[in-house]
Amino acid sequence: MERHFDEELKNLKEKLLHMADTAQEMIGLSVKALTERDKKVTEQVFTLENKVNHAEIEIEEEVLRLLAIRQPAASDLRLLTAILKINNDLERVADQAVNIAEIAVDLLKEPQFKPLIDIPNMAKLVQNMVKGSIDAFVNHNPAMATGVCEHDDEIDLINDQIFRVLLTYMMENPKSITPAVDLILISRNLERIADHATNISEEVIFIEEGKNIKHHIQEEQQH
Amino acid sequence: MERHFDEELKNLKEKLLHMADTAQEMIGLSVKALTERDKKVTEQVFTLENKVNHAEIEIEEEVLRLLAIRQPAASDLRLLTAILKINNDLERVADQAVNIAEIAVDLLKEPQFKPLIDIPNMAKLVQNMVKGSIDAFVNHNPAMATGVCEHDDEIDLINDQIFRVLLTYMMENPKSITPAVDLILISRNLERIADHATNISEEVIFIEEGKNIKHHIQEEQQH
Repeated sequence: MERHFDEELKNLKEKLLHMADTAQEMIGLSVKALTERDKKVTEQVFTLENKVNHAEIEIEEEVLRLLAIRQPAASDLRLLTAILKINNDLERVADQAVNIAEIAVDLLKEPQFKPLIDIPNMAKLVQNMVKGSIDAFVNHNPAMATGVCEHDDEIDLINDQIFRVLLTYMMENPKSITPAVDLILISRNLERIADHATNISEEVIFIEEGKNIKHHIQEEQQH
Repeated sequence: MERHFDEELKNLKEKLLHMADTAQEMIGLSVKALTERDKKVTEQVFTLENKVNHAEIEIEEEVLRLLAIRQPAASDLRLLTAILKINNDLERVADQAVNIAEIAVDLLKEPQFKPLIDIPNMAKLVQNMVKGSIDAFVNHNPAMATGVCEHDDEIDLINDQIFRVLLTYMMENPKSITPAVDLILISRNLERIADHATNISEEVIFIEEGKNIKHHIQEEQQH
């Protein structure tokens, strides 16, 4: 039975990994729709969203089933709770990609007013953060998780820079205000994805090192 | 022992209710700082954030402890998982209030460029949604939870209206762009709070009616 439970946990982790891959793909596609100015690409994002939503429900049901029939002890219990949380964060990552795709649909109705440089770079960075956070989870690697958390400051700087550059466009030309605000919102969506990757990483550090660093880090950053 | 477990669940619900009160208070204070142009009020938000963060950890630990020692059957298991999720949503509501307070600190450095009408109204609405979602949970009231979900569309309309009004200010006066974008972001933060209240309400409907409406509702709204 122990071995069987290990098998079930491994299975769950693989599902989570697969869901993370899909969420990452959605981030890439939502920004690709923007850079290639191709509305059809946004439809792929909406299709993948359904996949992620189903995966979320499936993983949740499986965790509950395991909690009920295996009645796991402390450390496995902690692991299953972590899977529930990570599952939730990944679904929210996918939601943010959907938000970006929805804004892209609007943006593509008008001609492009500026070349996109920082947003595709920021998207790649946050994709890597999501990937890093899940890899850290699957491979029990708190050092990798710490690395992900450290990128969060970089994301904040890029976000700030995107805002400043767009501000100059808006000041020069009031017609650029609507699309510029759209890009600011996309940049915020990407920042949120980085936050979710950071949440996942903090969860990994918590499981692996048995301490809750979450709010300590937040307090240090904010005040 | 059964009765003791009921007592423990009741205790947990009360803690959640208390955390929800604090999160609501934070929303009110973050917007009050804006309308009364009083930076000191933002400090109250940051102080309450610590309280919410501690409550989140405490509730999480208590749920894990109960899962471990009580090894609850299906319906209680579902309830404990719901508490974990609601706990997470409430902490994120508090985070959004902190975001608003942080933007308020920036906004208060400059003179007010327009009277605030829609944002305080929107804040009251989302406070009521948070309250409604938790009341629905504590009182096993799926009809009340459905009511909360229905307000989500109204919030989207207000969010859109805020954007349009601010756009006219930005077009008339480029100096208003930075504070106007700040107000747009605050409006988005309030919209996110409404999303969390909707998540909580969907969780309540799921527990009470035993079906997962979450993604059905999303699909209907989005496509």
